[in-house]
Amino acid sequence: MSAPSSVSAPLLSYHTQHAPTGAFASFTLGLEGQGGGFGQSLAGPATQSVFVGSRPAPQAQWRLLPFLDATRKSEQAAFLGEGAAASALSAGHVVLTGSDYQRRLGWASDRWTADGLEFCLHTPWHRTKEPRAMSGPAQKFAFAPVVCATLAYDNRAGATEAELIFGLGNAGQPLFYQDDRAGRWAGFSAGGMFGFATARSRLVSARQGFDVLAENRLKDSRGLHAIASEAALIFRVPAGQRREFPLVLGFYQAGEISLGLACSYYYTTLFKDLGSVLRHGLEQHSRYVALAAQRDAELAASRLAPAQAWLLAQATHSYFGSTQLLRRGREPVWVVNEGEYRMMNTFDLTVDHLFFELEWHPWAVRNTLDLFADRYAYRDRLHDPQGRRAAGGIAFTHDMGVCSQFSPPGYSSYECRDLHGCFSHMTAEQLLNWICCATTYAEHTSDAGWLKRRRALLVDCADSLLRRDNPRATQRDGLVKWDSDRCGPHGSEITTYDSLDVSLGQTRNNLYIAVKTLAAWLLLARAFRALRDPTRARQADRAADRLADTLGQKFNRTDGYFPAVFEAGNQSRILPAVEGLVFPLFLGFADEVQARYPQLFADLATHLTGALRAGVCLDAQSGAWKISSTSQNTWFSKIAIAQHVVRRLFPETLKGAARAADEVHAGMQQRLPIARFAFVDQVHSATGADLGSRYYPRGVTASLWLRE
Amino acid sequence: MSAPSSVSAPLLSYHTQHAPTGAFASFTLGLEGQGGGFGQSLAGPATQSVFVGSRPAPQAQWRLLPFLDATRKSEQAAFLGEGAAASALSAGHVVLTGSDYQRRLGWASDRWTADGLEFCLHTPWHRTKEPRAMSGPAQKFAFAPVVCATLAYDNRAGATEAELIFGLGNAGQPLFYQDDRAGRWAGFSAGGMFGFATARSRLVSARQGFDVLAENRLKDSRGLHAIASEAALIFRVPAGQRREFPLVLGFYQAGEISLGLACSYYYTTLFKDLGSVLRHGLEQHSRYVALAAQRDAELAASRLAPAQAWLLAQATHSYFGSTQLLRRGREPVWVVNEGEYRMMNTFDLTVDHLFFELEWHPWAVRNTLDLFADRYAYRDRLHDPQGRRAAGGIAFTHDMGVCSQFSPPGYSSYECRDLHGCFSHMTAEQLLNWICCATTYAEHTSDAGWLKRRRALLVDCADSLLRRDNPRATQRDGLVKWDSDRCGPHGSEITTYDSLDVSLGQTRNNLYIAVKTLAAWLLLARAFRALRDPTRARQADRAADRLADTLGQKFNRTDGYFPAVFEAGNQSRILPAVEGLVFPLFLGFADEVQARYPQLFADLATHLTGALRAGVCLDAQSGAWKISSTSQNTWFSKIAIAQHVVRRLFPETLKGAARAADEVHAGMQQRLPIARFAFVDQVHSATGADLGSRYYPRGVTASLWLRE
Repeated sequence: MSAPSSVSAPLLSYHTQHAPTGAFASFTLGLEGQGGGFGQSLAGPATQSVFVGSRPAPQAQWRLLPFLDATRKSEQAAFLGEGAAASALSAGHVVLTGSDYQRRLGWASDRWTADGLEFCLHTPWHRTKEPRAMSGPAQKFAFAPVVCATLAYDNRAGATEAELIFGLGNAGQPLFYQDDRAGRWAGFSAGGMFGFATARSRLVSARQGFDVLAENRLKDSRGLHAIASEAALIFRVPAGQRREFPLVLGFYQAGEISLGLACSYYYTTLFKDLGSVLRHGLEQHSRYVALAAQRDAELAASRLAPAQAWLLAQATHSYFGSTQLLRRGREPVWVVNEGEYRMMNTFDLTVDHLFFELEWHPWAVRNTLDLFADRYAYRDRLHDPQGRRAAGGIAFTHDMGVCSQFSPPGYSSYECRDLHGCFSHMTAEQLLNWICCATTYAEHTSDAGWLKRRRALLVDCADSLLRRDNPRATQRDGLVKWDSDRCGPHGSEITTYDSLDVSLGQTRNNLYIAVKTLAAWLLLARAFRALRDPTRARQADRAADRLADTLGQKFNRTDGYFPAVFEAGNQSRILPAVEGLVFPLFLGFADEVQARYPQLFADLATHLTGALRAGVCLDAQSGAWKISSTSQNTWFSKIAIAQHVVRRLFPETLKGAARAADEVHAGMQQRLPIARFAFVDQVHSATGADLGSRYYPRGVTASLWLRE
Repeated sequence: MSAPSSVSAPLLSYHTQHAPTGAFASFTLGLEGQGGGFGQSLAGPATQSVFVGSRPAPQAQWRLLPFLDATRKSEQAAFLGEGAAASALSAGHVVLTGSDYQRRLGWASDRWTADGLEFCLHTPWHRTKEPRAMSGPAQKFAFAPVVCATLAYDNRAGATEAELIFGLGNAGQPLFYQDDRAGRWAGFSAGGMFGFATARSRLVSARQGFDVLAENRLKDSRGLHAIASEAALIFRVPAGQRREFPLVLGFYQAGEISLGLACSYYYTTLFKDLGSVLRHGLEQHSRYVALAAQRDAELAASRLAPAQAWLLAQATHSYFGSTQLLRRGREPVWVVNEGEYRMMNTFDLTVDHLFFELEWHPWAVRNTLDLFADRYAYRDRLHDPQGRRAAGGIAFTHDMGVCSQFSPPGYSSYECRDLHGCFSHMTAEQLLNWICCATTYAEHTSDAGWLKRRRALLVDCADSLLRRDNPRATQRDGLVKWDSDRCGPHGSEITTYDSLDVSLGQTRNNLYIAVKTLAAWLLLARAFRALRDPTRARQADRAADRLADTLGQKFNRTDGYFPAVFEAGNQSRILPAVEGLVFPLFLGFADEVQARYPQLFADLATHLTGALRAGVCLDAQSGAWKISSTSQNTWFSKIAIAQHVVRRLFPETLKGAARAADEVHAGMQQRLPIARFAFVDQVHSATGADLGSRYYPRGVTASLWLRE
């Protein structure tokens, strides 16, 4: 590694989301020629031109980092009628390419260097408590919708004054020059929705025009041109000096921003407008930078290989870009949006973000579980494939809405009736997700009070899970086999692997669901023991044992694998066979489980040994891990969990090719087409094409690797 | 004409803005294959697909008006990974083309008919008082951010139940189904920012999906799919019946939406959210429709030829799309945005909107004049071309900001220093504009109290205008010849004809400015008389006489024209030579002026006779009127004023070709490329190309024609 506090990436041209915590906003940058910039609640990167560069003397050519959007054009033509020839953009600058600059992505930073210039974006986070339990200043520091940056230049060898530029081309909307009356800061805002600022000094000036890179003939009394959509701050660096300038990039959305459940951004209680956010960012700039350096140092000090560290850093950046901290009245509402789909608190993602969130903001897990319990729980009836009907039990929705539009109580935005595939209901899986999240949260944080308050619901969950095996207790084998009537008469439940491989899609008799169900029973047993309910704990233990027995019978001993679905001769081999074991592993009782079910672990080891071969669950062409032997459609976030479980619990199944895959995975994320969308989860395992789940938060499952 | 209450247009495929009063929002529709839909504060049309059509039976093919956007595609692919082949849009519909449907644009309506279907958008307005002088219900009726529509179908000859559709494809953001608890209305909203609704009935249902035109396999418990961005209302029309359904289209932006001067939309005091707006629209639907019919009937009953009526109707639609009624504290703030440029209250436009606004909302004129007086006035110093310097006087800025970003007090967003052309200052012209607007407002409305309150400012204006001729009284000839120091040492003042023809650009010794200055003195004389200040009235009269004398000397008697600029051998012939006469004409004292300056009027008649010939100010190729003999760049709004003045005051100068031009002008607006941008002001006189000023409000100058 090239520096102790960062990660060296072999490829430099890829987009990364640089985001505050909870603003559902990103300053996205990095893919050459594609611009980026400020994006509020977008499904992908913005397309502003971002001007960052230097020149050794005031009249010299600008040398710019490659953040100009390829579609950049002057908007002056519209004003000039026939005189449009005068509207060409200047050619007075050089755009640097890969060989001209260096880039290092850290866990909480992204740093470009070239020709003495250093530009760094800092996106720190730290452990937080429930916002209402934090002091006002602590809330401001944690939840300000601000990203800090630094712009530095080493002119110690220079004989002339150098200039630096940081600016934005915001096609279609002019920027608005703002400063405070006290003369401490100055910058530009786009309608109060986003903007940037720096500390005022005699070395700093502002510039605005149709072509901010050219000498501007068009200047008002301030030297600006307020109708133009390109604006920049210019920094002078005297000959013989090195200077570093603070920059802050801020977002702001006032008022209610959601439907269905009326919420505002939590930060609106802390800051009255964008100007307050920018001022705060400058006041706290050095603290933010130091905190980012601390996160960077932690990742650098970890045992992760460079490719692994890069993957975690890139994924963490995208995670924060999807986070949204709202308030409803005085209560905080935590939302993680589902990347390009922007579904809110998709439970399949919540359960995967769990491990990262329990480390940094465990209150957010509880907040989400409470909203699922209070607004997005429902009770259903069941039917089996033969059409028999029975009472069901409690379950939870797939999500809470989409695009800041909360769906009605008890309903998701995603789930539809009368389907067998994508968009059907995930009733049993979301029930498992609530159980796994709730028990893991309570045990990891020792939040006994909350567990006690949720005891009745936990009991309901256990009952509901039993009934989904079979409403008649005598006929249970531990596998979920009955479908919710939410699916309608012509539908059946699916799992989160809905779009991946039709063989993994159904919930009934599903291997992945079975092992997760086993984990759920083990977790429930521990929770009920903590709740001093030995009867229910024993009932859960029995359910786990029954399921482990059943799994033993499903193992194909001839070919040494568990089929993905225990029906219709399915022969797919899947890595999520071991996904459910992540919970015992995370809570530190995986050894107990292994001791309790040695045959199951032996069978899973055999399964994995067979799976982790080229052409099975290692892509024959690329070497990437893939979720299913029968699909080239795979999800990195889930692979990261599987890697963690395999490396910790089944290390003997890992051979050379499987071990070397991290660099393949990182390379796919760093190259086009994926590089266009920051972190992408759903990938073609052979080609590295983006198949879906772009601009996606779930890659933070890689944070589990820090525990290896 | 095909119907008494509307205007028959020979061409049907063009965009028209359908807008509430003061919401700076348009539902734009009409250009085939280009979509349109809800646009909030945009520089041009939105690009949503709008689904409007019928089918004779529930399973038959939809027959749709041509409002689908050509780029429409299914967003389902992103969810399906490798299964993207399933994402193709259905082909189960027919898009009607020009020969299949009829369209009639009225002054306050736009009506499409085809196959028994009738779809009409109603955008009425009426005379209003200052909002605070209106009752609450009256304010709501006048300023609700709502557009009403009706969807009707004649199924009296049908044997099966027919279906109608009204829906929206809002790429990138799913729509949110909403209804009220009382069961009166139902519809869809995009994040509470805009949406549509109808009255609930057993004949109405809702639909939402990735392809709203296909039978939707993907349905939640309500039959919708909440993550999809296409949504519609479906209306059933029983066999043997004709049915008409009300629709409302609403906009809403909460909270402060401006910078520089913190304002909210005025309607936010009247409606708490989009739902309230939609409910109000349905409750008042029949009143809105009746009011629109009244406006339509007035235009139809006028003496305007069909092409003229169409031009006025199209221009009026675009005018309302640029209007923005804000509030600052309790005070209303009236803004008209400058079309695609979105500069706020550009004074060159205010002075042209004057005549329409004095008819319908004269308080808005006063509101704008007050904000110019209180925030956007400044005092300057002067210099002449020889570099002599002197004190100046009061003047006003070109505009008040851009894109809801108010510029600092005393400064516009447009004007820059050290320029001789486009983007320089318009100091003298804006001074003239304040004088002409203020005096015309006061005289037309008999608002003597306001005039009295503004008396000191009017005196300052008169003094300032005198000094811009020459600071030394003895050297005055009436022409503006000194430039504001706001222009800087290397600049000079320009006129509103900045981008048109360099020969018209300069203020100094400018014919258009001179005649407007003459009008200003005549208006000031009347105002001072009304203020019982005979001394100042006589001073104004003397200034007018002096200027009329000077003009007499500038007339080229050999060739029979006034040059556009009395300098450097300029030989351009321009129609705005008579623009200033519109004020006396509007106030009814043009005859007095003619009697007072018979030689000037005779010279102007000679000038016009020469100008209104092919190859001079009639385009040799198209026959369109054009502003200058030396440019093919022309503005329709200014032509409309010239036409009015010529037809009323100089009818003898109008020959056949000049008389026939209205159809040429209308045809240019109705055809591509202009048809893409609703009303376009800046046009190439030969080709009808759009040269600028798209989506523009100023065409309402054509309302002057109603006075002929």
